[in-house]
Amino acid sequence: MTHLEKIRYKPISVKKILREMKDISEVMIDLAYSAALFNNADLAREVMELEERVDTLSYLLNMNAMIAARDAGDAEALISILTVAAATNEISDAAADIAKLVLLEIGIHPIVREAFRRIEEQLIRVVVKPGSKLVNKKIGDLDLAAQIGVDIIAIRRVKKWIIDPKDDEVIRENDVLIARGAPMGIEKLRAMAEGKEVVIEE
Amino acid sequence: MTHLEKIRYKPISVKKILREMKDISEVMIDLAYSAALFNNADLAREVMELEERVDTLSYLLNMNAMIAARDAGDAEALISILTVAAATNEISDAAADIAKLVLLEIGIHPIVREAFRRIEEQLIRVVVKPGSKLVNKKIGDLDLAAQIGVDIIAIRRVKKWIIDPKDDEVIRENDVLIARGAPMGIEKLRAMAEGKEVVIEE
Repeated sequence: MTHLEKIRYKPISVKKILREMKDISEVMIDLAYSAALFNNADLAREVMELEERVDTLSYLLNMNAMIAARDAGDAEALISILTVAAATNEISDAAADIAKLVLLEIGIHPIVREAFRRIEEQLIRVVVKPGSKLVNKKIGDLDLAAQIGVDIIAIRRVKKWIIDPKDDEVIRENDVLIARGAPMGIEKLRAMAEGKEVVIEE
Repeated sequence: MTHLEKIRYKPISVKKILREMKDISEVMIDLAYSAALFNNADLAREVMELEERVDTLSYLLNMNAMIAARDAGDAEALISILTVAAATNEISDAAADIAKLVLLEIGIHPIVREAFRRIEEQLIRVVVKPGSKLVNKKIGDLDLAAQIGVDIIAIRRVKKWIIDPKDDEVIRENDVLIARGAPMGIEKLRAMAEGKEVVIEE
């Protein structure tokens, strides 16, 4: 499943990498718990994809930090960045450990499911089908939070992840949406992504 | 800071332990990031307190799971519980690593602060002073979410933690409240906890 490629040094904003690592690791925890709760292999696979992304970001961050450090003073000043990055990496590893349980079909004990159950909110992973009304719509214009009580927390576009997408992000065919909301709204989003008619009560 | 005491076996609901570990580890991440963002030693110390609690819960869970397993079949069925518990423990360790940066006064690089900054929401830790209007009030009756846009996500009462307190939880003198909200609401809550007059606009 993992595509091992040499990660080459690129000069990238350390701030941007760190923010992305933090955002991804937070989404991963939610996804991993949901994967365990519903014994859902699709969600678990998204967690594994994200873990790969965090690993790549972690290498890039460490390379950029090393190049930035010219002397002991620089190194001291930068150490907090590496420590925080390592911590987000540990969080993503922990989420991946939970996801692997699902993928290895070890079987999730009912106690785990009961401990993780939250009736109010669920996570969903849906693929936007070509005929869907979501295609070519801006997230802000859809206003899903107000309409059906659902938040899109991440989009995967082939290998690219958009975490916490902004209002002007346009949904495309075959986007994988990760969304959070009450069960009824979640089902409406699934129907919309699959191109079915959905009645929205005003 | 750490009080090492032998943790003795107690028969406890594994489900209850696991849920508490999960809830605490999630709060710990938010607290740790906020501690780093504001270089706030008080928040960092709460993270360390919570880590101790997660460690204790982890021991208790492992002991209870071992006693519950009578044969290989039981052990296989229970392994997902131990794996998930270990993952939540890793998450809590990662949060503690971030908190230690603050406590060891290693200095949080501005890049970390910039990467973590969210203008919309902040976390606060306040101690409820004896004269405060919060004393002896039920959380549900205070309705802080509607009144000042603030959520109490945890209460520490000496060594006892109440994560995600329910509406009928009564706030007591000297409770440590961990709350999340917009900066203005956060400041109002601080004033209320310190016994100052707060004008709430309807």
